[in-house]
Amino acid sequence: MSSKILQGNIRKINFCQFCGGPNKHEIPDGEEKVRAICTRCGKITYENPKMVVGCLIEHDKKILMCRRKIHPSYGLWTLPAGYMEIGESAAEGAIRETWEEANAEVEVQSLFAQLDIPLVGQTYMIFLAKLKNPHFSPGPESSECQLFELDDIPYDSLAFSSMLVTLNLYIEDIKVGRPKFHYGVINKRPGTSPSEIHAYTLDFHMQS
Amino acid sequence: MSSKILQGNIRKINFCQFCGGPNKHEIPDGEEKVRAICTRCGKITYENPKMVVGCLIEHDKKILMCRRKIHPSYGLWTLPAGYMEIGESAAEGAIRETWEEANAEVEVQSLFAQLDIPLVGQTYMIFLAKLKNPHFSPGPESSECQLFELDDIPYDSLAFSSMLVTLNLYIEDIKVGRPKFHYGVINKRPGTSPSEIHAYTLDFHMQS
Repeated sequence: MSSKILQGNIRKINFCQFCGGPNKHEIPDGEEKVRAICTRCGKITYENPKMVVGCLIEHDKKILMCRRKIHPSYGLWTLPAGYMEIGESAAEGAIRETWEEANAEVEVQSLFAQLDIPLVGQTYMIFLAKLKNPHFSPGPESSECQLFELDDIPYDSLAFSSMLVTLNLYIEDIKVGRPKFHYGVINKRPGTSPSEIHAYTLDFHMQS
Repeated sequence: MSSKILQGNIRKINFCQFCGGPNKHEIPDGEEKVRAICTRCGKITYENPKMVVGCLIEHDKKILMCRRKIHPSYGLWTLPAGYMEIGESAAEGAIRETWEEANAEVEVQSLFAQLDIPLVGQTYMIFLAKLKNPHFSPGPESSECQLFELDDIPYDSLAFSSMLVTLNLYIEDIKVGRPKFHYGVINKRPGTSPSEIHAYTLDFHMQS
């Protein structure tokens, strides 16, 4: 059995969400992955990767960042971002998260980056955005919000690898012209902790 | 309570996946959406949008399509695509689905389209891809696989709105040059069935 088959949190899905019966964790007939299968009603509860949506907000050649007042990565800097919800689009989710974390009203311009992180089952979608007005302030999950010149971005205290990659790609694009669209896969080095944000390779990098 | 708050299938999450206790469906303190909250252990089971990954395969100015041998949209034509799995990237998922549905080995070139469908909580990610060799044949979920000239695409028997939008954007791009990257939101017209694939508007369309 490859390690891939065991990835994710499928073994934490102990009970059936439909009937409450106890699940077993087995590979169903004709499939290749371990699934949570109800021993009472037979239904499978699937676990799917999650989308994280956010904004890279450009204002006067500066970037808006938030300092996290929640775990994980408490006290570290991030672009406003969070889990996409059922019933909204990625763009709407990115606008909502920016409002919640930075009390900032933004208009999205284009999708800048899609970054998959297979190890944790997450896909980041970061939109380029503009402030509709020059007002922002920390929301309940942030301790500070600040516009940073590109040379002053707090690289030593970034919250996540995804933000490091996004900012690096953005700065490289800006140096030679305008931002493109980037797809990439962030593969964290095995055995490193999530807080070791430099311990990754960027694979499958393609730009449009 | 807005209709948005009630979207998704959260009310079908009847039992807690952690302890098996019965869930209630309420808006937790400090949140805005109805969640499935366990009445025994208090844990919330979240429901997230799902990613569907697939390939638009170009070969000799033709496009590879599969005729579905499964429901929904049995007998209708689609690009090879399916749910992204935990532990894989979107690109790897698109390659896997193409192998499963069309027995075709492909190399992905770039991300062509990201299309959100908020009403059903799905996001499609379609990659441009090339065949590594000229072999393909129907997998277990397909009755036929065929290369179509752009003028011969079976527009009258397409399986999903997402495929109609993808193919339309592709053909428009090809007419004037090379394929770009497209982000868009497919809003199905309220009260129409999923089989009415023309009953949508494409909103938030942005290209890179």
